[in-house]
Amino acid sequence: MDLESLADRMSSRASKYDVSGDFPEEDFDDLRAAGLLGLMVPRRLGGGGASFAEYTDVAMRLGSGAGATALIFNMHASVTGALAHIPEELVRQFGAPESFAASRDRVLQAAAGGALYAVAMSERGIGSRLSKVRTSYERTDSGFRITGAKTFVSGAGHADAYLVAARDSTSEGPRISYFLVPSGSGVEVRPAWDALGMRATASHDLHLHAEVGEDALLGGIEGTALLLAQVMPQWLVASYAAVYVGVAKAVLRHGAEHLNERGLQRLPMVRARMGRADTQVAAAELVVRNAARLVTEDPGSPETNRWVWRAKLAAGDTAAEVAFSVLEAAGASAMRRGHPLERLYRDARCGALQPATSDVCADWLGACAMGDDPDEVARW
Amino acid sequence: MDLESLADRMSSRASKYDVSGDFPEEDFDDLRAAGLLGLMVPRRLGGGGASFAEYTDVAMRLGSGAGATALIFNMHASVTGALAHIPEELVRQFGAPESFAASRDRVLQAAAGGALYAVAMSERGIGSRLSKVRTSYERTDSGFRITGAKTFVSGAGHADAYLVAARDSTSEGPRISYFLVPSGSGVEVRPAWDALGMRATASHDLHLHAEVGEDALLGGIEGTALLLAQVMPQWLVASYAAVYVGVAKAVLRHGAEHLNERGLQRLPMVRARMGRADTQVAAAELVVRNAARLVTEDPGSPETNRWVWRAKLAAGDTAAEVAFSVLEAAGASAMRRGHPLERLYRDARCGALQPATSDVCADWLGACAMGDDPDEVARW
Amino acid sequence: MDLESLADRMSSRASKYDVSGDFPEEDFDDLRAAGLLGLMVPRRLGGGGASFAEYTDVAMRLGSGAGATALIFNMHASVTGALAHIPEELVRQFGAPESFAASRDRVLQAAAGGALYAVAMSERGIGSRLSKVRTSYERTDSGFRITGAKTFVSGAGHADAYLVAARDSTSEGPRISYFLVPSGSGVEVRPAWDALGMRATASHDLHLHAEVGEDALLGGIEGTALLLAQVMPQWLVASYAAVYVGVAKAVLRHGAEHLNERGLQRLPMVRARMGRADTQVAAAELVVRNAARLVTEDPGSPETNRWVWRAKLAAGDTAAEVAFSVLEAAGASAMRRGHPLERLYRDARCGALQPATSDVCADWLGACAMGDDPDEVARW
Amino acid sequence: MDLESLADRMSSRASKYDVSGDFPEEDFDDLRAAGLLGLMVPRRLGGGGASFAEYTDVAMRLGSGAGATALIFNMHASVTGALAHIPEELVRQFGAPESFAASRDRVLQAAAGGALYAVAMSERGIGSRLSKVRTSYERTDSGFRITGAKTFVSGAGHADAYLVAARDSTSEGPRISYFLVPSGSGVEVRPAWDALGMRATASHDLHLHAEVGEDALLGGIEGTALLLAQVMPQWLVASYAAVYVGVAKAVLRHGAEHLNERGLQRLPMVRARMGRADTQVAAAELVVRNAARLVTEDPGSPETNRWVWRAKLAAGDTAAEVAFSVLEAAGASAMRRGHPLERLYRDARCGALQPATSDVCADWLGACAMGDDPDEVARW
Repeated sequence: MDLESLADRMSSRASKYDVSGDFPEEDFDDLRAAGLLGLMVPRRLGGGGASFAEYTDVAMRLGSGAGATALIFNMHASVTGALAHIPEELVRQFGAPESFAASRDRVLQAAAGGALYAVAMSERGIGSRLSKVRTSYERTDSGFRITGAKTFVSGAGHADAYLVAARDSTSEGPRISYFLVPSGSGVEVRPAWDALGMRATASHDLHLHAEVGEDALLGGIEGTALLLAQVMPQWLVASYAAVYVGVAKAVLRHGAEHLNERGLQRLPMVRARMGRADTQVAAAELVVRNAARLVTEDPGSPETNRWVWRAKLAAGDTAAEVAFSVLEAAGASAMRRGHPLERLYRDARCGALQPATSDVCADWLGACAMGDDPDEVARW
Repeated sequence: MDLESLADRMSSRASKYDVSGDFPEEDFDDLRAAGLLGLMVPRRLGGGGASFAEYTDVAMRLGSGAGATALIFNMHASVTGALAHIPEELVRQFGAPESFAASRDRVLQAAAGGALYAVAMSERGIGSRLSKVRTSYERTDSGFRITGAKTFVSGAGHADAYLVAARDSTSEGPRISYFLVPSGSGVEVRPAWDALGMRATASHDLHLHAEVGEDALLGGIEGTALLLAQVMPQWLVASYAAVYVGVAKAVLRHGAEHLNERGLQRLPMVRARMGRADTQVAAAELVVRNAARLVTEDPGSPETNRWVWRAKLAAGDTAAEVAFSVLEAAGASAMRRGHPLERLYRDARCGALQPATSDVCADWLGACAMGDDPDEVARW
Repeated sequence: MDLESLADRMSSRASKYDVSGDFPEEDFDDLRAAGLLGLMVPRRLGGGGASFAEYTDVAMRLGSGAGATALIFNMHASVTGALAHIPEELVRQFGAPESFAASRDRVLQAAAGGALYAVAMSERGIGSRLSKVRTSYERTDSGFRITGAKTFVSGAGHADAYLVAARDSTSEGPRISYFLVPSGSGVEVRPAWDALGMRATASHDLHLHAEVGEDALLGGIEGTALLLAQVMPQWLVASYAAVYVGVAKAVLRHGAEHLNERGLQRLPMVRARMGRADTQVAAAELVVRNAARLVTEDPGSPETNRWVWRAKLAAGDTAAEVAFSVLEAAGASAMRRGHPLERLYRDARCGALQPATSDVCADWLGACAMGDDPDEVARW
Repeated sequence: MDLESLADRMSSRASKYDVSGDFPEEDFDDLRAAGLLGLMVPRRLGGGGASFAEYTDVAMRLGSGAGATALIFNMHASVTGALAHIPEELVRQFGAPESFAASRDRVLQAAAGGALYAVAMSERGIGSRLSKVRTSYERTDSGFRITGAKTFVSGAGHADAYLVAARDSTSEGPRISYFLVPSGSGVEVRPAWDALGMRATASHDLHLHAEVGEDALLGGIEGTALLLAQVMPQWLVASYAAVYVGVAKAVLRHGAEHLNERGLQRLPMVRARMGRADTQVAAAELVVRNAARLVTEDPGSPETNRWVWRAKLAAGDTAAEVAFSVLEAAGASAMRRGHPLERLYRDARCGALQPATSDVCADWLGACAMGDDPDEVARW
């Protein structure tokens, strides 16, 4: 199935999953069948070997079909993509490159085989500030015991394993490690997600009292979490930017359809709203694609990271503003639940509020624009 | 119970009715107990004898408690207020002033006694264009037979009677009359309201195959509908402006509460957003109150009507923009269903889309500002 | 001459003074002839005895004729109005109420007789932060020696006397006093004003090496400056708000005229822009008038001061936004120098940038809206 | 001299030419010396052989130095670029391809040698609607007599020749031809340009009573004007988009410099304004570059033309909005004449008002977005 058809199928189911707030099972059956869970996995391990730019293209198309599904997919792609693209010199810096590589490859191969990963990083009260994580781990005879609670875990209850950030309970300083904790015993999903938009992400809470084996430690090395976040901000900040450009494109498409059906397409204010929205979306798409190109060609450079913030800011704001204006053009009849514009209006509002929020991105970019170093601000 | 306490009680129930989409029974029990169903009824008939300006104050406070309840109340107030305030010379122009007065007083007295009225004017495909109404009536031996379908009937299924606009099926020209059709036989409510916001208005469809007595004809005179609309646009355009100012004020109040709870109240962008929102809401309130004052002091004048459009435009746009910005200040935690800001964000978006939409108001006001006569455009 | 005619005459000269940047002599001849220099002076001293609300009305009308002239007039009105309206209990608090009253009355009587006052408060590098003033004074045998430099002195070179804020050079703490320094020897105007907009205010620099008599000390009492600023913020923050509402109204008027002349008045986007601008201006006017009413009825209360900030914010932003949009509606032909819209576009941009800037007002109002005390921030 | 240095030299003179409104002689000395007048001329004729995308890059850099100079240069580039890039099949369609080519090459060779061309197309009352041109021509024994008046002729009085659109006075239908009329006898410049912004473009009126030889007829063929406009809208609509992106970039650069000098770079609202401005400018640059790339790779296609409108809309709006916001961040001290931000604020406002205005672009793009054919609207 090509991406276009897949997005169409997702689009036709989006209302159903939005209303129920259920995890979009059928969408993931399709994604799995299309081999997309292996998109970021290197070809030598049976995957698609996609670059960040190629990922961006896929995420934009999926987001245009069903934003919530694309967001869950984005978390899976973040885990697999970050792992696949870790710079070799960083791996060497971690020490023990062979064992790291073996651990990494095992995780990636499983994804190529259809395993779905979710990310369990945020915690109540600290948001996504990695350095403040309270979930902790301690060594046991056979591996580790992980204890804590996570929020906003998209795909919770439906993933095969969760990427959990946890703090070494025996260390003084902030030694934060990543574990890939399999679903099952000790991993409890508590329903908590019933939100304005992106309702089908099933971003519930996760309570952890899990005993895991040695091999759950990502790469077999402790203390890698902060370093990874710093060198690969694209996966934490900008990867869902593409999803929101997709959402904005869906607003244009469904808006045009609705306005034609209602015979409103020649009203001057309708044309004015659609024309400005068209240009905003076209601009945001270029920003996000340019950021993705730079991440692919020159990952981690200051200029690349600046484009990553721009992508997040442009995508989040554009989706929200375009949905706001096009809904006004469409009129009261588009406010009915089940109407695509009604859902998109709610979905589109979420982008700017996801971390890093638009206001935070603007602050960082403003510092950069005046020659200040935004790195002074501790980000994670 | 004073208005403040009443609004607080409504506020505490708003989430419940929003989720279920049910008619807010308890709110109307309170409104009825407080005598507010008689607010617009002249004192000589046992009512509150309120002016339009006094109504505006009440609607703003109720809207700040629960927007949907205030919108239903607004329709009841429109029926009773328009009736109570019909200029005497217009009544004389209709002919048969005594029978008109008797009919009117009967309707108003019932309201003072607790009867709730709803408005059944809009129809699918024609919106609120009164002159295009397709619901028709014909004379019977004992009164009239009314046939047709109405949409967006706030309070449907819970009103004691419906103000129905219908066309004389025997007349060539557009002879549109008002009937007050009691609920019951021949009046069928079809669930149709499941909307983005203002969910508890129960604005369902009404299907009419009703036989009514002579006394159902409002004022006992046919063909009054268009004339009434022209002389009293405030009840069709601006009376719910006050509700949306109330909604905008609720956004400020709940926003401040949330931001203080989260300890975000000193963040510069939070203060910037709240400060601008504060001024926008203060300005919109003044515009709506000034329109209400003019409607009270100089009803129907061109200057008054211009303020009526300004009130509709300012209230609708302000509520939507303020909710958009304050939700962004509040952050992802306010997007949870059940959070007041989540509901207010959806409720607030509805104002600009209700007729006359903001774009229509701006068009009319622009014509006025350049000395053009917007009356050239047939409004109803 | 009535205000309407006076504003028309000012309007017809505004382009000339804008181009040359000269002080609007003819406008002030008219203002003097109309007795408006005595507007704020109590009737018992031969003046107009105007309240702040009445001043606001005058300033709005003058601002609609010529913004720059109205701004100079505003500074004169600030000196005379603040003096005339100093609360009696504050005078008593200063001690020596009789000598204070005599000094005050002398200043006010001169204004009623046609004297023009200007304000010399700002200094380079400190803006209008009164507590940071570097201009200093010391006692001499016959009075005081005042030394320093002031910026942004509207009307410089054309005032009869300047209200100068200066610091006691012998005091440790910030003892800031007001002097009314007559023009002439020791008062040198240095041309420094050649600005984007409001060009005819002649807001040049003032260099002071002046010997003044005892009677130059305002009220005969030292150290009153900060106290006066705190109790009467309206004269420092909001009095020119009215001027910018006038400017915004001029934008609407000249916009309508231009668009009709060009036959563009029926273009949908032109109507849309004019209609929204109309509502914005109407709202800003109400905000400014409401602030003025509260200053008159309940000066100095927290609620009044909040409205004072709202007035400044609403007027400054509205003027700038409306000029921006209406110029776009008017098209390239309105960009010619000498066209009223070209000048108004530049004039209108200045309001939000004058202290307290819009961003500062929004910050304070945001703090208030969340229950914080903006007084914590030292304002002056 | 590289482009960077050239732009810096232009930037250092921009204020001088802005104040006087004189044609920027020194800038054109530099441009000529750098061989940039031949930028669009094919290499075989001694020029730079630039593509539209390469032109866009040059225009952006020059616009970042001095907007007015870049606009004059843009008109020259439009004449030479359009000529150089006329599709061969269009030339064949005109008939007489050899004589056309000879005529074209002569014009281009002169440009490579340093000749400067200006465009005389607009007329009072018809704007740039080519089909309504009233300037007319008639055959004489030795060539043509051209009579009429043109407005907005950037570079008037300083060009070596003017591209004049004129109507065949003997033809019934609209037969519009292009002439390259040398400056001198019969070509009178009347000062008319004294504008808000882009003051140094010297866009004065041109009065024509000129006798020209046969070789002045562009390509030696009559009636080509409308056809050329239709196939190459980029030169009429979007070529100055690049200039306005340059202007917007200059706003960021000078804004950052000013804010650092004043020590304001850490104020939260300053960072917020600069950060959003940064992203807007980055987005507009991508839109303009993408349009330029498509014009180069796939000229004249519907998709390319759509991007051309987007480029015009994005560049014009972005420059104006960014200048508005950054000036507010910079504060009153940046409003002084001679300050780069003061000039840029006025220059930046001009883009959206130049044809096709932003509102017109939005209208067209809105039609496209809903599947309507904007070609139905006669453009020229």
